[in-house]
Amino acid sequence: MTYPPSLIQLIAALKKFPGVGKKSAERFAFKMLSWSEKDIKDFIKSIENVKSKLDFCSNCGALVETGSCPFCENMKRDTSLLCVVSSAKDIFSLEEVRLFNGVYHVLGALLSPLDHQFEEKLQLDHLIHRIKSLGVKEVILALDSTLEGDATALFIKSSLRDFDVRISRLALGLPLGSTLDFVDEGTLSRAFSGRSSF
Amino acid sequence: MTYPPSLIQLIAALKKFPGVGKKSAERFAFKMLSWSEKDIKDFIKSIENVKSKLDFCSNCGALVETGSCPFCENMKRDTSLLCVVSSAKDIFSLEEVRLFNGVYHVLGALLSPLDHQFEEKLQLDHLIHRIKSLGVKEVILALDSTLEGDATALFIKSSLRDFDVRISRLALGLPLGSTLDFVDEGTLSRAFSGRSSF
Repeated sequence: MTYPPSLIQLIAALKKFPGVGKKSAERFAFKMLSWSEKDIKDFIKSIENVKSKLDFCSNCGALVETGSCPFCENMKRDTSLLCVVSSAKDIFSLEEVRLFNGVYHVLGALLSPLDHQFEEKLQLDHLIHRIKSLGVKEVILALDSTLEGDATALFIKSSLRDFDVRISRLALGLPLGSTLDFVDEGTLSRAFSGRSSF
Repeated sequence: MTYPPSLIQLIAALKKFPGVGKKSAERFAFKMLSWSEKDIKDFIKSIENVKSKLDFCSNCGALVETGSCPFCENMKRDTSLLCVVSSAKDIFSLEEVRLFNGVYHVLGALLSPLDHQFEEKLQLDHLIHRIKSLGVKEVILALDSTLEGDATALFIKSSLRDFDVRISRLALGLPLGSTLDFVDEGTLSRAFSGRSSF
């Protein structure tokens, strides 16, 4: 006995969410069936709202609500510091920390040949254009400490070798509150070799 | 820096899916922002379709597409066998196995005081009414082998003690393809005590 066609369609749509496979999508769809008419209307309304009210800045890629970018059009931000992130979501995490007053650049992807994310996806021409026109002195690579993040960081570094900019990466080491016996080898070795005087 | 209000609303709506917390909902919402207009329209359409085309049988609780229940209104099903499940989704899994030709009864919940799922939620009056009117001879409890499933099974068993019906439960034991060293103690002890001659 297979699911009714309309349910199969919804399950297929739900599988587009990151990390959601067949089983999760099925659970989501059945959960939705138990929602009230009002829940469903509210849900659809919130999707439509987000799509009509939010957009990405065509310059830096940050999430923009009212039409003017809170970073590109903010005269108080230091344009000599450019922080490169993979997704607009990362900007919110970094802004939470309140340590950075420069501007951002969203790549939109990380190098990942297996997922068909090649060099073209990063649009480094645009990054280089911004570095030149903003007079950037330091490019901070705030990328994931994964294989994809590392590959992307190395690729950007080599692409920028002819420019007079400092390139930095986020520190690698022990996460706060961790115990040595639970930290993986790779992290421990990076924390050890990157030790600082104390 | 907090998310824009419309995004916060969408994240709250997405958190209603089972097993989806704040982090996952944020990832889903940002993924949605990258969807095309068409993707969004298709998604909304599929939700509306499901809500307009599907419903639950008011008698047994199974998922119904065209208005007539494929179990209650199917004369070929054996009404002396009643299989009790916690959710309409479970019926699809059981029908896949093709071992059962009786009728179903969806509880809609399992006993779980911590989640405010008390005895009233199970509506056992309705189950008892169906057992009587259908002339049920065997009630098969096809419930999760979890704390909640066990509690619900025990509760139903005690509620039905005055009725002349056989009550059975799904077998507990090794899942197919498992190795003994990876099976948890509880499963192994149930598999051992429930061993059958061979």
